[in-house]
Amino acid sequence: MRALLGDAWWTDPDERLTYSYDNSRRQALPDAVALPVDAAQVQALVRACRTARVPLVPRGRATNTTGAAVPVAGGVVVSMERMDRIVDIRPGDRCAVVQPGVLNGALQQALAGHGLFWPPDPTSAAFSTVGGNLACNAGGPRAVKYGASRDNVLAITAVTGAGELVTLGTATTKGSTGYDLQRMFVGSEGTLGLIVEATLRLVPAPRDRRALRAIYRDVSSAARAVARLMAQPVTPSMLEFMDAHAVGLARHVGGADLPDDAGALLMIEADGPAAHLEADLAALREAAAGEGLVSLDSADDESARARLWAARKALSPALRTLAPGKINEDVVVPVSRIPDLVDGVQDISAAARLPIVCFGHAGNGNLHVNLMYDPADADQSARAREAMGRVFTLALQLGGTLSGEHGIGLAKRDFMPRAMGAPTLELMRQLKATFDPDGIMNPGKLLPPP
Amino acid sequence: MRALLGDAWWTDPDERLTYSYDNSRRQALPDAVALPVDAAQVQALVRACRTARVPLVPRGRATNTTGAAVPVAGGVVVSMERMDRIVDIRPGDRCAVVQPGVLNGALQQALAGHGLFWPPDPTSAAFSTVGGNLACNAGGPRAVKYGASRDNVLAITAVTGAGELVTLGTATTKGSTGYDLQRMFVGSEGTLGLIVEATLRLVPAPRDRRALRAIYRDVSSAARAVARLMAQPVTPSMLEFMDAHAVGLARHVGGADLPDDAGALLMIEADGPAAHLEADLAALREAAAGEGLVSLDSADDESARARLWAARKALSPALRTLAPGKINEDVVVPVSRIPDLVDGVQDISAAARLPIVCFGHAGNGNLHVNLMYDPADADQSARAREAMGRVFTLALQLGGTLSGEHGIGLAKRDFMPRAMGAPTLELMRQLKATFDPDGIMNPGKLLPPP
Repeated sequence: MRALLGDAWWTDPDERLTYSYDNSRRQALPDAVALPVDAAQVQALVRACRTARVPLVPRGRATNTTGAAVPVAGGVVVSMERMDRIVDIRPGDRCAVVQPGVLNGALQQALAGHGLFWPPDPTSAAFSTVGGNLACNAGGPRAVKYGASRDNVLAITAVTGAGELVTLGTATTKGSTGYDLQRMFVGSEGTLGLIVEATLRLVPAPRDRRALRAIYRDVSSAARAVARLMAQPVTPSMLEFMDAHAVGLARHVGGADLPDDAGALLMIEADGPAAHLEADLAALREAAAGEGLVSLDSADDESARARLWAARKALSPALRTLAPGKINEDVVVPVSRIPDLVDGVQDISAAARLPIVCFGHAGNGNLHVNLMYDPADADQSARAREAMGRVFTLALQLGGTLSGEHGIGLAKRDFMPRAMGAPTLELMRQLKATFDPDGIMNPGKLLPPP
Repeated sequence: MRALLGDAWWTDPDERLTYSYDNSRRQALPDAVALPVDAAQVQALVRACRTARVPLVPRGRATNTTGAAVPVAGGVVVSMERMDRIVDIRPGDRCAVVQPGVLNGALQQALAGHGLFWPPDPTSAAFSTVGGNLACNAGGPRAVKYGASRDNVLAITAVTGAGELVTLGTATTKGSTGYDLQRMFVGSEGTLGLIVEATLRLVPAPRDRRALRAIYRDVSSAARAVARLMAQPVTPSMLEFMDAHAVGLARHVGGADLPDDAGALLMIEADGPAAHLEADLAALREAAAGEGLVSLDSADDESARARLWAARKALSPALRTLAPGKINEDVVVPVSRIPDLVDGVQDISAAARLPIVCFGHAGNGNLHVNLMYDPADADQSARAREAMGRVFTLALQLGGTLSGEHGIGLAKRDFMPRAMGAPTLELMRQLKATFDPDGIMNPGKLLPPP
C-alpha cells in the first residue's frame, strides 16, 4: 500500500485515532487511513483491499450523525480530503463537476460568482463535503423548494466494491437511457462503492428573500397551516417548524422574543425577484392564517429576518440545558400526519420520563426528534433507546420513514426490517452484493446483519 | 391461466393481433394477452410465467415509439387497462396514489379540481397511461421547470420478475432510508417487473401563463439565448426550439405567420400568479435578446398564445409532406452543445441526402431529431438507419445521451454499449438479473443481447 499511495497511507496510532469517529460519537479504530489523490489511486486501493478482503470506509469530514463513517469492522478509512477540487463550473449547462472532498460551503462560494447554487444546505454545510452530502442524501431547509442531494445530481463516477470504475448518468438534465444508477448511489452511504467525481445540478440563485414567523395555539393548528401552505402555488423556500417545547426553550433559555401561549411556531420564507415577494408573501400569509393562529410577523429586511430566526438559532444551544445527552433522529411523515407524529412523540416522552423536543423541515414532513437524556445514567440510556424505537415505529405507522436526510448508518440499521417488507430488504441486499461482491464496502452500515 | 384470470386471459388470434404492436410500427404476435384487475392477479401471473419460463411484456396504451411494448420474444402481453383507478388524491400531502392503467389525461382532470397537476406532459398525455409514462420516464415541454416522470414519483409497488410484491419508497417528499429503488424502476421499461401502484408527487397548478416567440438569425444565436435563459433565475415553464427546417415547414406547409429569414425559433413560456408574469416576462425577454435576435413577440392572452403556438402545432402534420416515413429520436446534449448538435445533424443530413428536422425541449437540451425517408425504398431505408447511428454517436460525443424521454426499447438497444462503458452496462445486466432472475420480464428490451 505504501508503494501504491506513498505518503497517502497512514498507520500511525495517533492518525488512526483521528479517523476513528464521526459526529455520532461512536468510535472504532481503523487499521490504516488512506488519502488518495485521484481515481486511479482509489481504484488501486479498492482492488488491493478486495484481494485481501479488507473493509473500506469512505469518509468526508465525518459530520454525519449515524455512525456511517465509523470503521466498526476495522480496515481502511478512505478520507477524500485530498480530492477536493472543483473540476468545472458550466453556468450555461447549470452544472458543476466536483471531486468528492470539496466542502459544500466552498462550492457555494465558488458558485455565487456565477449567480448559481447547489440546493443541499445541511447545518454542517461550512465543513461537510459534497461527497458526504451525496453519501447520506443530505438535505436542509431549502429542500422543501429545491430538493435534497438526490434531486440535484446528474452523474456520478465511482469505483464499485468490485473495483470497477463506472460513470453513471450524464451531464444533462434529462435522461432515459437505461437504469438510473446515479440516484441509487446517492444515499448509499459508501456501501456500494467510492464516489470519485460528481456532476451536480445547479439552480440560479434567487435575488431576494423574505421571512414570516407564525405562532399557533397548538401543533394541530400549525400542521393544518403547513398543509395549506404546501397546497397553494407559492412554494416556500423554507418552512420550519418548532413544537411547544422548542418554543419554550427558545424563549426561556435563548431569550427569544416570543409570546407565552405559543403552542407551535412556523418560520416561513419565500425567495425570488424582489418584485415578486410582496405578492408571494401575501399568498403565504393567507395560507398561514386560519384557526389557531396567534400572531404573524414579517421581516421586511435582512436584520428583521435575523431577529425572527433568532428563536430557531437559540434552540440548539438551549437544548443542552435540558440534559447532557441527545439522540437526534430525523423521521419523515406525510405532511398531513405531522400532528399525529408530534402528539405521539409527546406520549412517548411522557412514558419514558425524558424530554423530547421536535423541530425541523415541516414542508417535507421531516422532523428532527431530539430526545434528551443523561448518557451516564444507565436507566435513562435504556429508556432513551426504547423511546427512540417507539418513535421510529410511530413514524412508520403514520406512513413515513426512518430518515429524511441523515441516513441509516449504524444508528437505524436494525430498524430497516420494520421500514420495509422482507422482499424489499432482500432486494437491497442483493443489489449491494452486485456492486460489492465481497462485502468490503462499509460493512455493517445501512443494512442489518442477515 | 384461465382458472387464474377468467375472462382476463385472451388467446384469440384477433385479440392477440390487437396487442401485437406499439407506436414504433414494429409488430410481433404474443401467445396470449392478460388483463389483470389487481396486484394479486399480477403476482399469480408472474409466478406462473416464471415457473414456465414464459416472457411477460407490460403494456399501457402502447403509445411509445421504441418498440418497448412489442412482444418480440412471444409470451404474454400484460395490458394494464383494467387497473385504471385513481386510488387516492391527498392534496395536503401533494400526492396521488394511482393504478398503472389510469390515463395521464384522466389523472390531470381529476387533479385540476384540487388545483394540482402531475408534471409529465408527453404529447400522448390524453391517451397514454401513467404506468407507461413511468416505464419510459416520459417528459414533455413542462419538464424544463417541473421535471420528468422520475422526478415526480414518491413510491412504487411492483411485482418483480422474481414474483415478489415489493413497495419501494414512501409517500413522503424526502427519504434517506436505504437504496433509492423507486426511481430506478422509472425508465426501466418493464424489464425489472410490473408496476401495480404508484404514489406520484404533485405540484400546485400555476394560476396563469404567458408566452413569447423569439426568432433568431441562426441556430447558434438561438442556442446562446437558451443558455442565457437557463442561467437566470426565472426558469421558463416551457422552452421549445425549432430549427430552420422546422420553421420553413411551419411557414410553407402549415401556413404559420413567420418571417422569411428565420434561422431558428424559440417558444418561451412563463407560468405563475398573474401578478408575477409581467416581471417574469421582462426577465425572459431580456435573456432572449442578444446578437442574432430577429423578432420577439409576446402573447398577452390565451388566444394570442394559441396563435404563437400555431407554428409548433403545424409542424407534425407538415412533416408528413416531406416523406412517408419518419424516424423520430430524442437525443439529449448539454444545453451549451445544442448548436454543435444541430450543425452536426445537418452535416449528417447532407451526407445521407435525407431531410432531418430538429425541434424539441431546448431547456433540457432534449431535441427530437426527425429523419424523413421512404420506407419502401431500400436504399433510403439503409441510409436512414446509418444516419441515425451517426446522430447517436454525435450526441454521445457532445457529452449527451441516447434518449431524454422516449427510452431505449428495441430502437436504441444496440447503441447502449456506445452510451456507457462496459462495466456500467455489465452492472445494468446484473441488476436486471437481480430483479428478474429468469429473464422473463420484457426480454430483448433496453439491454442489448450479451
